[in-house]
Amino acid sequence: MALEDIAKIINENNSFILLPHVSADGDSIGSSTGLSLALKKLGKKVTILIEEEPPSVFKFLPEFENIKVYNGDDKYSADCVIALDTGDIKRLGNRFAVFEACSNTINIDHHQTNTNFAVINHIDVKAAAVAEIMWDLTGLLKVEMDTDIASCLYTSIMTDTGGFRFSNTTSKTHDIAGRIIDLGVNIDKIAANVLESNSVAKLMLIGTVLSTLELYYGNKLAILTVTSDMIEKVNATEEDSDGLVNYAKGIIGTEVGILLKETAGGIRVNFRSKEYVDVAEIAVALGGGGHKKAAGCTLEMSLEDAKAKILQMFKDVFVK
Amino acid sequence: MALEDIAKIINENNSFILLPHVSADGDSIGSSTGLSLALKKLGKKVTILIEEEPPSVFKFLPEFENIKVYNGDDKYSADCVIALDTGDIKRLGNRFAVFEACSNTINIDHHQTNTNFAVINHIDVKAAAVAEIMWDLTGLLKVEMDTDIASCLYTSIMTDTGGFRFSNTTSKTHDIAGRIIDLGVNIDKIAANVLESNSVAKLMLIGTVLSTLELYYGNKLAILTVTSDMIEKVNATEEDSDGLVNYAKGIIGTEVGILLKETAGGIRVNFRSKEYVDVAEIAVALGGGGHKKAAGCTLEMSLEDAKAKILQMFKDVFVK
Repeated sequence: MALEDIAKIINENNSFILLPHVSADGDSIGSSTGLSLALKKLGKKVTILIEEEPPSVFKFLPEFENIKVYNGDDKYSADCVIALDTGDIKRLGNRFAVFEACSNTINIDHHQTNTNFAVINHIDVKAAAVAEIMWDLTGLLKVEMDTDIASCLYTSIMTDTGGFRFSNTTSKTHDIAGRIIDLGVNIDKIAANVLESNSVAKLMLIGTVLSTLELYYGNKLAILTVTSDMIEKVNATEEDSDGLVNYAKGIIGTEVGILLKETAGGIRVNFRSKEYVDVAEIAVALGGGGHKKAAGCTLEMSLEDAKAKILQMFKDVFVK
Repeated sequence: MALEDIAKIINENNSFILLPHVSADGDSIGSSTGLSLALKKLGKKVTILIEEEPPSVFKFLPEFENIKVYNGDDKYSADCVIALDTGDIKRLGNRFAVFEACSNTINIDHHQTNTNFAVINHIDVKAAAVAEIMWDLTGLLKVEMDTDIASCLYTSIMTDTGGFRFSNTTSKTHDIAGRIIDLGVNIDKIAANVLESNSVAKLMLIGTVLSTLELYYGNKLAILTVTSDMIEKVNATEEDSDGLVNYAKGIIGTEVGILLKETAGGIRVNFRSKEYVDVAEIAVALGGGGHKKAAGCTLEMSLEDAKAKILQMFKDVFVK
């Protein structure tokens, strides 16, 4: 459905529940808080209902304190329930109960794979972040943009584009970012809070993991390793190792970066390539999947065996 | 002088030498290569003359191979010499000889402190990067923008704004970035090459330095240490530790991040603060200087004594 029609439905209703996806990230939280502030300016009643405690890096967002964590309580009901940045109903988690109980559901998203699970669906795959859709929706609702709403939307855009670096970034993304700066939003503070912020545990884990660096095939292949012991020793979580594979990929002269992670279900392997190696091919051959430049698999064997297996696979790629 | 008049002077001359500043960075290299390509499209003869070997992270830039390293040779002369991103003549290094030998010199820069050292000076302090001025100049010269020139200018903008994160980023910066994306420039490749690229030595140094993390005053103060031994052991350079202070500052709950670096001239101390501590005050009290949120000093004493002295200074700040 066109965004104009969604604006009309919003105008006709009074109370709203906004649902970011499970394991809420910057885009789902920023879009939800931004939309919440906009709807409140129209005099609407709004509840942001989240599956788990939201990440504390977003604590600086104006509407953060009003986010409610769902506890299975059936008191949550509204005229209209809006799912944001949510590809399918599984991503609503336990809050599917709240969604299902409402006859007036809206699904606003940018994932190509969205299953159109609501009564009304608006999927814009060209939007780098759902916040871009929120920017337009706020305009259609004739809500005057302010620094609070803009800070939320900027946080979304910045996180979902990796700081305007991913290839999903468009001229529209930059146009909105420029308008947000003109409103007087303190963008360097947002970047420092969100993109350059680490827990002590994560920082210690980065240090430990970097010390495991191994290089093969004339530095074309770089491997980093995370063991359960390492995570435990610095009091980190498994998620703290997310993204560390990019340190391996980023080495000058390296084509493929790999992160091997010891998990309860086996050795989780993340592959990243820079230019010409199709890592999805290798991941698929090992029972996993992914894209040409970012793929993964899980190997049910020891860390040493997993490493040996992977080195064998890449021997065919790098040694001709 | 207005940029229109500089365009006129460029049109009236045939050969050009472009001078990026010493220790050339992304903006000076991107602006120079971008302007060089534009001038060549007008049929001009152009030499980019640089003080030292340019950093290899910029090797992907189209005009990189044509950058000449100055060797004191007096063969370099042209109708017009243009200094780019250069605040004063000291930043021309030995190439001042080439600059001085030309009677038709132009200085295009964005530093507030620029000394107007050329015959013709154009200083735009609102430009986040000199590349923004190059974008306008290219338009005034009626050179059709292409992906090669745009890649150079994008590299400048991205590096001088820290990936659109610094407070110098304006809506004009974002407008130009959007237009560059619309031209079809592969921005994720540029970001991967420039911002996410590390040598093996630097990566090992990051790992080692993170393992030195010390926290004081309820985690409000975070200290990282780099010794000459650490640098030597991983075959890194002193410059490889640049920016590591941001890991200390970025810790959740930390207000001041400090990097202590053992150098030939003593212990170099970098201070960064997040919100409310004026680190320039402390740096000045220790014989250094800087800004409220980024300052530094050099202490001629042992590492242990330097640390003790600093902890004493911050005791007054954090323990009341």
